Amino acid sequence: MSSPLRVLLDGVACSDSWPLDRGLHYGDGVFETLLVRNGRVRFGALHRQRFATGCDRLQLRVDQAIAWQEVETLAAQQGSAQLKLLVTRGPATERGYTPSGREQPQRLLLAYPAPAAEPAQQPAAVITLQATLGENPLLAGIKHCNRLEQVLARAQLRHSGALEGLMSSSSGRLVSGTMSNVFLVLDGELVTPKVDRCGIAGVMRRVVLREAAALGWPARETDIAASDAALCSEMFVTNIRLGLRPITQFDGRALPVGERMRQLQAHVAGLDE
Amino acid sequence: MSSPLRVLLDGVACSDSWPLDRGLHYGDGVFETLLVRNGRVRFGALHRQRFATGCDRLQLRVDQAIAWQEVETLAAQQGSAQLKLLVTRGPATERGYTPSGREQPQRLLLAYPAPAAEPAQQPAAVITLQATLGENPLLAGIKHCNRLEQVLARAQLRHSGALEGLMSSSSGRLVSGTMSNVFLVLDGELVTPKVDRCGIAGVMRRVVLREAAALGWPARETDIAASDAALCSEMFVTNIRLGLRPITQFDGRALPVGERMRQLQAHVAGLDE
Repeated sequence: MSSPLRVLLDGVACSDSWPLDRGLHYGDGVFETLLVRNGRVRFGALHRQRFATGCDRLQLRVDQAIAWQEVETLAAQQGSAQLKLLVTRGPATERGYTPSGREQPQRLLLAYPAPAAEPAQQPAAVITLQATLGENPLLAGIKHCNRLEQVLARAQLRHSGALEGLMSSSSGRLVSGTMSNVFLVLDGELVTPKVDRCGIAGVMRRVVLREAAALGWPARETDIAASDAALCSEMFVTNIRLGLRPITQFDGRALPVGERMRQLQAHVAGLDE
Repeated sequence: MSSPLRVLLDGVACSDSWPLDRGLHYGDGVFETLLVRNGRVRFGALHRQRFATGCDRLQLRVDQAIAWQEVETLAAQQGSAQLKLLVTRGPATERGYTPSGREQPQRLLLAYPAPAAEPAQQPAAVITLQATLGENPLLAGIKHCNRLEQVLARAQLRHSGALEGLMSSSSGRLVSGTMSNVFLVLDGELVTPKVDRCGIAGVMRRVVLREAAALGWPARETDIAASDAALCSEMFVTNIRLGLRPITQFDGRALPVGERMRQLQAHVAGLDE
């Protein structure tokens, strides 16, 4: 019952195992986007921790030591690069959604050229998207491979000229950008949405939460009504590639970039970690 | 920026294009599970319609005629089989979630042995699952490849002995089983959850809605509170493999299988379509 009788790929018989991969069939996997500087993965320990947590939560039995040794070796070889590590549950051993527990996870590691350096004070616009995010505590926070919501949201954003689009959850809570986390100054306080119902627990979000507190500008994770985003006095978005990116325009309204934000941006960019 | 410098698959350099497939990275695709009898796809026209709708909604530019000609040819060759048709947006032409619009969709067609015939009056238990479904109108109804919610739900169900588990949405509405749609008799009326916020618009669900009306036992699509499922007097689940499967036990409570359900089950099983 487990093996197909025939496999056709674009009409041609195919004997490889990858057409059976559960990553392809169900998005049954997790990934990390990594930035390499001077042969080392930026914030590697935090990435490694999140990746291990994601694997645990999806019960993907991945050899963490092998995966990260491979990442570190490739990082050292490339010197400067972006990497994507993707692990799936592997080829299906049975038909259907149920994992058999006998799958052999498959590991993919891709190296891309390092992103072009951008000036720290570049203008960046954010708009509010209509596309929403479904809530599921079992998946919240995990950088898993079910990303159709982001794909559709990015397609909405494509011709807007904006760097990023803000998304809210089906219950009306602000969650994140399509490819970044978001921080707002609301009522004078630095806040970021919780990621316990949906959204990804970003590594740069984690770094900013830690470093902001250290710099005397503590940020709080909280529930934020989507409609409250319009009330913010400052905004920045975070991901590993952008670092901390100040937002200078939100839904057409100009936003200032305060001194504390500039300090935090420079501080995070300069961390040797 | 679009092509990776290096691709490692389980540590070994890989020059194939499939590691770049957006189906693998994002679950960016749709699928159909098809049952073949006497060389023909059961309810082929309805499958074809749903598949085309899913492709449209995700803006996957798939040649429908080629895809279905291939399905019909393989169906005729196999005689009796289960097929899975899966189409992804294809290898990424750029990094990141945004579709470039230049991707070439990739088509996968798998043939499996036909499922073993089961006696129509077999007992079948259903339990209520804790795992919920996120709500997203942009994805609701589509048989897309973001199926981690079902994977985790099936893992919960694995050792229960139940045929199926009922899932509710994050807002507390009954949605479906993990791999089937569900119909209930509530207050004497045959009802099934709407699939406008989450869930899959199943082909067998569509057939049952049509045929039940024709047999004088009309079924209504409606919002059903998850807690109301406990009040049902009868239940059945549907998918293309099970057909209409009467449920004889729900959360430990015995359920009767009424005469009208038996008639509808036999009628649907006998349709030459």
